[in-house]
Amino acid sequence: MVLKFPHFIHGGDYNPEQWLDRPDILARDIELMKEAHVNSVSVGIFAWSHLEPEEGVFQLDWLEEIIDRLYANGIYTVLATPSGARPLWMAHRYPEVLRMSRNLTRNRPGVRHNHCYTSPLYREKVRLIDTALAERFGHHPGVLVWHLSNELGGQCFCPLCQEAFRGWLKDRYGSLDALNKAWWTDFWSHRYSDWSEIEAPVPSGETSCHGLNLDWNRFVTHQTVDFARWERDTVKAAAPDLPVTTNHGESYESINYFKYKDVVDIVSWDSYPLWGRDPDEREIGQNTAFAHDVIRSIKRQPFMLMESAPSATNWQEVSRLRQPGIHMLASMQAVAHGACSVQYFQWRKSRGASEKFHGAVVDHYGGSDTRVFQEVKAVGERLEKLDALLDGCPRPKAAILYDWENGWAMNDAAGPRNLGMHYLETVMAHHKAFWKLGVSTDVIDMECGLDGYRLVVAPMAYLLRAGIADKLRRFCEDGGIVLGTYWTGIVDETDLCFLGGTPGDGLGQLFGLRSEEIDGLYDGQYNLLRPLDGFLPREEYRLTELCELCKCSTAQPLALYGRDFYEGMPALTRNAFGKGTAYYLAARGEQALLDDLTALLCREAGIEPDLDADLPDGVSAIRREGSVTAVFLQNYLPEEVTVSLRRPYRDFESGEEVGSQLTLKPFEVRILEER
Amino acid sequence: MVLKFPHFIHGGDYNPEQWLDRPDILARDIELMKEAHVNSVSVGIFAWSHLEPEEGVFQLDWLEEIIDRLYANGIYTVLATPSGARPLWMAHRYPEVLRMSRNLTRNRPGVRHNHCYTSPLYREKVRLIDTALAERFGHHPGVLVWHLSNELGGQCFCPLCQEAFRGWLKDRYGSLDALNKAWWTDFWSHRYSDWSEIEAPVPSGETSCHGLNLDWNRFVTHQTVDFARWERDTVKAAAPDLPVTTNHGESYESINYFKYKDVVDIVSWDSYPLWGRDPDEREIGQNTAFAHDVIRSIKRQPFMLMESAPSATNWQEVSRLRQPGIHMLASMQAVAHGACSVQYFQWRKSRGASEKFHGAVVDHYGGSDTRVFQEVKAVGERLEKLDALLDGCPRPKAAILYDWENGWAMNDAAGPRNLGMHYLETVMAHHKAFWKLGVSTDVIDMECGLDGYRLVVAPMAYLLRAGIADKLRRFCEDGGIVLGTYWTGIVDETDLCFLGGTPGDGLGQLFGLRSEEIDGLYDGQYNLLRPLDGFLPREEYRLTELCELCKCSTAQPLALYGRDFYEGMPALTRNAFGKGTAYYLAARGEQALLDDLTALLCREAGIEPDLDADLPDGVSAIRREGSVTAVFLQNYLPEEVTVSLRRPYRDFESGEEVGSQLTLKPFEVRILEER
Amino acid sequence: MVLKFPHFIHGGDYNPEQWLDRPDILARDIELMKEAHVNSVSVGIFAWSHLEPEEGVFQLDWLEEIIDRLYANGIYTVLATPSGARPLWMAHRYPEVLRMSRNLTRNRPGVRHNHCYTSPLYREKVRLIDTALAERFGHHPGVLVWHLSNELGGQCFCPLCQEAFRGWLKDRYGSLDALNKAWWTDFWSHRYSDWSEIEAPVPSGETSCHGLNLDWNRFVTHQTVDFARWERDTVKAAAPDLPVTTNHGESYESINYFKYKDVVDIVSWDSYPLWGRDPDEREIGQNTAFAHDVIRSIKRQPFMLMESAPSATNWQEVSRLRQPGIHMLASMQAVAHGACSVQYFQWRKSRGASEKFHGAVVDHYGGSDTRVFQEVKAVGERLEKLDALLDGCPRPKAAILYDWENGWAMNDAAGPRNLGMHYLETVMAHHKAFWKLGVSTDVIDMECGLDGYRLVVAPMAYLLRAGIADKLRRFCEDGGIVLGTYWTGIVDETDLCFLGGTPGDGLGQLFGLRSEEIDGLYDGQYNLLRPLDGFLPREEYRLTELCELCKCSTAQPLALYGRDFYEGMPALTRNAFGKGTAYYLAARGEQALLDDLTALLCREAGIEPDLDADLPDGVSAIRREGSVTAVFLQNYLPEEVTVSLRRPYRDFESGEEVGSQLTLKPFEVRILEER
Repeated sequence: MVLKFPHFIHGGDYNPEQWLDRPDILARDIELMKEAHVNSVSVGIFAWSHLEPEEGVFQLDWLEEIIDRLYANGIYTVLATPSGARPLWMAHRYPEVLRMSRNLTRNRPGVRHNHCYTSPLYREKVRLIDTALAERFGHHPGVLVWHLSNELGGQCFCPLCQEAFRGWLKDRYGSLDALNKAWWTDFWSHRYSDWSEIEAPVPSGETSCHGLNLDWNRFVTHQTVDFARWERDTVKAAAPDLPVTTNHGESYESINYFKYKDVVDIVSWDSYPLWGRDPDEREIGQNTAFAHDVIRSIKRQPFMLMESAPSATNWQEVSRLRQPGIHMLASMQAVAHGACSVQYFQWRKSRGASEKFHGAVVDHYGGSDTRVFQEVKAVGERLEKLDALLDGCPRPKAAILYDWENGWAMNDAAGPRNLGMHYLETVMAHHKAFWKLGVSTDVIDMECGLDGYRLVVAPMAYLLRAGIADKLRRFCEDGGIVLGTYWTGIVDETDLCFLGGTPGDGLGQLFGLRSEEIDGLYDGQYNLLRPLDGFLPREEYRLTELCELCKCSTAQPLALYGRDFYEGMPALTRNAFGKGTAYYLAARGEQALLDDLTALLCREAGIEPDLDADLPDGVSAIRREGSVTAVFLQNYLPEEVTVSLRRPYRDFESGEEVGSQLTLKPFEVRILEER
Repeated sequence: MVLKFPHFIHGGDYNPEQWLDRPDILARDIELMKEAHVNSVSVGIFAWSHLEPEEGVFQLDWLEEIIDRLYANGIYTVLATPSGARPLWMAHRYPEVLRMSRNLTRNRPGVRHNHCYTSPLYREKVRLIDTALAERFGHHPGVLVWHLSNELGGQCFCPLCQEAFRGWLKDRYGSLDALNKAWWTDFWSHRYSDWSEIEAPVPSGETSCHGLNLDWNRFVTHQTVDFARWERDTVKAAAPDLPVTTNHGESYESINYFKYKDVVDIVSWDSYPLWGRDPDEREIGQNTAFAHDVIRSIKRQPFMLMESAPSATNWQEVSRLRQPGIHMLASMQAVAHGACSVQYFQWRKSRGASEKFHGAVVDHYGGSDTRVFQEVKAVGERLEKLDALLDGCPRPKAAILYDWENGWAMNDAAGPRNLGMHYLETVMAHHKAFWKLGVSTDVIDMECGLDGYRLVVAPMAYLLRAGIADKLRRFCEDGGIVLGTYWTGIVDETDLCFLGGTPGDGLGQLFGLRSEEIDGLYDGQYNLLRPLDGFLPREEYRLTELCELCKCSTAQPLALYGRDFYEGMPALTRNAFGKGTAYYLAARGEQALLDDLTALLCREAGIEPDLDADLPDGVSAIRREGSVTAVFLQNYLPEEVTVSLRRPYRDFESGEEVGSQLTLKPFEVRILEER
Repeated sequence: MVLKFPHFIHGGDYNPEQWLDRPDILARDIELMKEAHVNSVSVGIFAWSHLEPEEGVFQLDWLEEIIDRLYANGIYTVLATPSGARPLWMAHRYPEVLRMSRNLTRNRPGVRHNHCYTSPLYREKVRLIDTALAERFGHHPGVLVWHLSNELGGQCFCPLCQEAFRGWLKDRYGSLDALNKAWWTDFWSHRYSDWSEIEAPVPSGETSCHGLNLDWNRFVTHQTVDFARWERDTVKAAAPDLPVTTNHGESYESINYFKYKDVVDIVSWDSYPLWGRDPDEREIGQNTAFAHDVIRSIKRQPFMLMESAPSATNWQEVSRLRQPGIHMLASMQAVAHGACSVQYFQWRKSRGASEKFHGAVVDHYGGSDTRVFQEVKAVGERLEKLDALLDGCPRPKAAILYDWENGWAMNDAAGPRNLGMHYLETVMAHHKAFWKLGVSTDVIDMECGLDGYRLVVAPMAYLLRAGIADKLRRFCEDGGIVLGTYWTGIVDETDLCFLGGTPGDGLGQLFGLRSEEIDGLYDGQYNLLRPLDGFLPREEYRLTELCELCKCSTAQPLALYGRDFYEGMPALTRNAFGKGTAYYLAARGEQALLDDLTALLCREAGIEPDLDADLPDGVSAIRREGSVTAVFLQNYLPEEVTVSLRRPYRDFESGEEVGSQLTLKPFEVRILEER
């Protein structure tokens, strides 16, 4: 295990610098942490103006006192570098550290995350404070892990960044000719005759060169990750043994998190599901399962749940209170999916500023006799009993392909449906089918290997990169099952269209067909998929948004279109390829289609559900495999529900056997071991 | 009376400078004014480029001629200072006078209200022209009152304003330490180490420091009011006896109008209700009643209706014509609520530019044989018969608390419902309950005194300032009835949260409870309030948007929640406090709940409706108390309606007695005296 | 005929410069063009960076090779000037050539159409490349016509443009006094005291001076057209005999296309209807008919369909595939309305950049065995058989007045319905009535003559310019039928209101009435029109949005309002005027009202439908009159439909007689000759 800590971490963000004039409150915090079974807190996030109140004047004593006292009370520290926000003196003295926005003006000092990742001066300032922290605390026995900066993200359009972008392009393309060809700049006379002519895509300039846009997005990820790597190298220089992480937000658009794989020792993220938005919590439950699976798949290892709300947030459209039981359910769900921690933003509510109403373990009121505090405490107590499960992790046999760069390219490409291609939604719909079956899945990108999987679902693989076409073909040749869909294999890695027919790069052979046209449908318009020979259980399924017109070469049609001028053309096909089989779904289908198709593919791939049971809709199960293997059975329904088990199981916590009819209370989670 | 004029003023904005080359039209204006029973016009608004066509060259003769001729014909003048728009030569020569927008760029010359209230140069230019006007016209027998500038408002982000802001903050906080504490700048490392680091909140800079945002809003009001004070001092220096006013727009967001209380001699405003938007005019009628009540409550004195549309406006989404009778109804409503004038924008329609289609007494057509002209004339004739009522004013026993600064803070605070807290709408819903009962109310802010009231309704008093908590407690101790609601007593005057439980600042004792959590509900979600022991007439009322979970100490529950996990917790409570009683409504209720509750509280407070009658829904009544006291009975329905009077009344205008069954025509207003 | 080419042109945009490194593809293009019956391609659009890769270095050989080879294969060239996009070296070296946006910042290099039409430097650069092209290719036997630039449009706010604007204003008004009066600048003190004070209307400056806004729009058209004129003069200098055109987009807002009338030899446009958006294609069919009619009416001559999509576009919200038959229908529709060409954007899909998924004749796939290619080929084959119709054109007896400048003024004027005046929609609704009847119409602006027409429909002629009031009066006096509507004759050509009653400028006499008030209705609100004495077939028609209250002098009411306080006032009137009759519709009516009224007016004007038949709804007919006259009968329904002919016709293509019951297949077009 990456973290040298033999328990699930339970704790959260803690900002003692806001209460240094209130020693009574700081003392009370320690008592309350113990009461809540908190064994760790995250400190130093956004503390820079206290750590270096004047340029070059470092004041770390107060922090040492805090860390020491916590440690003396058995509470460990997740130590942040403070680079997520800079002191105002720095922003005013060195405007270079501030970002320039998309309209090419320099931001004013303010908010957080408003710094240029390229600026040498900012990097140097960060190096100095990080080094000071590392030297002072890098060997402290109470410090568990570095928390680098905070939710790194955003973009900067300053001249330094643009120059770095040009340098990155030179490395990538070698020559302007190569770049001109890759970006197809002859269109609209956009041929670059000098590197200096290249600029970031901004609203007042070039916005419609897809290759430029795509590479800019790649560069933004590159530069952001490079900043994290540079902070990592800085702290490792002084304290080589302490592991590092950086906490991600729940975002599938800006920074490609898979690029952090080799930068951090352990992946972590901040989870803020919209519990309570709908009376039916299943949707939120599945969305969150998906997010956990993405995060775990980055390294295929356990991860930290660095932040979560112990009650409502304050920044969502509406701050619904969580119903009793939801907090426990959400915490156990994270653990089920591979988390080794349950941490909160935040321990104690700030008295002022923009997050003063964000849910916290300790309210402004200050007592522990609140519903929220008691629910947090219950999670702490439960986690303490799960030590034996700590080294476990889900080990899926199925993977879903979700690729950030593919998403950037697909959403940017003016194409069949500018009203919304819904790539992410489509991937999540495929994931939902697995979640309902109780089959755990990884969510991988095109750079990942496919080893260990028996089934790969690759929806809308528009842009092919990182040898994914080859990998899929080899995977299938070796006996794997592949499901591909419409809008696959359209462009190469610079967004240039494949000539000679699509799916390109050899995927046409894999699927045994050629896509001739694609019909975009307006919202409200639909077609039908009609299975042949009872291949799927229903007589017809509804299709929307995108319908491809395909011509089969070696593929065999399994279902046909039921409407419009392409009625009777293939809508679902199967192609034998090597020892495996490649399925192709030519149109966006309703959930029931994905559910039925996924069940069928799992059976064909010999993948069993994680729990041998009939799962009612709204109950999911996921298995953590380790020195002790256990299945987390989760009820997302607000009512009691009974699950029929097909095999004998024992309750991990009580040690008692459970009968074949297991009744779950509303939102209850049970942890089961096979007998 | 402030104005030395023994009649209700009837008239409006008049722009003769647009017609100086058409003496025939100017002559015709006088004839038409007499025909319309107009006794006053407002001149000089936006006339600066005619008064000072070149820098330093003042041409006032044309204006004198106009004022003289009007006076000679018995028409008095409301004289404007021209500072609402500056000549183009000034804007081009001295860009300093123009505002800088929120994106920190200087505006180009154009539109109106586009000047910096801080600019010393602009103030000096205004001083010179105001002094010239005051010296020439400040003692003219035909001039009634100064009309300072026009609808002062807006914001400027220029360096001069930002420097003035820093000065204002120094005065307010004394030290940076105090400011840092008040704004809780340790959050996100926002601690200021030098006054110069403070900047106005702008999108490219700091936007999420609530204390900064709140103080910036206060400063904007301060600077705007200071500009008005400075114009007042200028004209008073030359003409000390002429009263001053400045006309407000109908706005509850930008400038805190209560801060003008001591600056102007009489308050005035511009009323543009959306008559005709819905077939049912009741909503508009009540909204306008609310606006009149706010304006009157600023000084608790009669006010001027400086502008109103004699027919459609041209800037609303849709310019509906007013149905016959609406103009009379709207004019009499203003008088009922305390107006001493009915004035129009505008007398004669401009031939060109952006308001050329704004309704006017005289159309481009030019004749008096129009529907609009005849309706205006009817108002003039009626007003002439109401002289005896001129010294009267409503004298409410109930007050509703609406506080601008509270609204700023509540809307800015990321909190329980970012989709909309609906403070103003909530206050208006409480007001509506009174309006339907025919009980007149003041609408006061936290700086106002509570003397003379028996009942104070204080919805959503999130931010407590100006000693309002003390005032409410003392008011209740002395026997007053108080109604408070959810989201009360959360923060102090710098938006810092109260520690130790809310409602804070002693309001927890007043209401006898503590609020533990607040649930934000999405649109469409709801809860129920179930009265105990028939405390309210219905079995249940619907609750939406915000539901607080309270723990009673001394309070007694009067109704409980009917749904969700907090079913059975108190939703409405009563607490005996001193000689009075404090009610607390824990959630946003439907109108019927406010109606029933308000009726009950009025009875408890011994407040009688203004008219002793059963008012059908859509008929309201308000009493002007003075040397002669009369009740204005107003029918907002498009049909005849009969009111049952419980006491004998006489028609003020006809002198005739009215029977116990009084029938009102569609939109009719009757003025009744007690016999 | 303007073009010296004895066939309908069939072809489209061709960008060989993107494939110069692929001679195999260039060779294949020739083969495929022949296969598709393409006789012309448009080259050079956006080729500047290939024609002048370095400043002053012209490389035209590759282009000559292309044109030669095409010609050798019987394929003619439409030759573009490349000024629609400039090389990046130019934009970087001379920022002056780039536009400044409405926020007064200079654009960065990028996209297309991003150049200042005023910049002397840009004009000089264009002159040099245009001259080089004209000298080399202006006499080439394979070149048919100049394609000047591409879809000229947009606005620039740079100092050069603003100075040119001031110059244009000096020419127009002569003196500042005249301008101040015309713009009514006394309103809000906006009087200009120096020409230099005049600035373009921008959001940060003057936005509410209607005269300024209107003249700025006129200037933008002037400067854009002047740029085209200047390119025309340049190419004509070297090659006087080659005709010129410039292709317009489908836009009714930015550039007044009627101003190109005397600049180009032939008008052309780019048509991209939203086929497939609704299952019912009739709406799209009629909208496109309207657009063709506008374009043809500019010169009242045949025009070129310069671009159309052979299948889906890529920039619409949703890229629906065209159903089989739609492409033929759309192509024949253009010919029916007067086109002498059917051309596509584009011949071959680009591999990359922003339009890589725009429909093309040849897909990335590259073969001719696609549905799209075969449909294009079928159009080519059919066009080859229509040579005898080439010199024909519709010659309507009815005209609808649609005036760009009127639209600008009406939409800018804050007035009766800021939610939407719907001028264009209203004009199109009138056009639809004719289209459903099968009566061809011109769509003219106020500068056009009325000779040759018997009926003129002039909806919402708010602003009167170019003597239109006189022209309408004379037209009517001479026996013409005029239909006017509400919101007519309100302002003169500088947007100053007419005094003394409207409709102004003598139109009150023409219609025999005066408009007193206009009621704006919210969406959802309505009134009714009740015909008197069965004047129209239905008992009532619904009225929405705008209802005028009129007082008749000599006019006779034909229908009355049925609701609201103006129930019983005239809603439709007729006035005998000279030998003609003037109708006035006082409110916006539903389509059925316009249909019934139009049928009645056509009968009164003695205008017969283009085909003597009962046209089912969704079938339209239009006649091309020439040395051979034929009627294009078009079925916009997805089903078979039978048309009853009242006269004997012969099928132009087969020569066969058709019976009295003619059955059309879905989307079929038949071309009929009278026997």
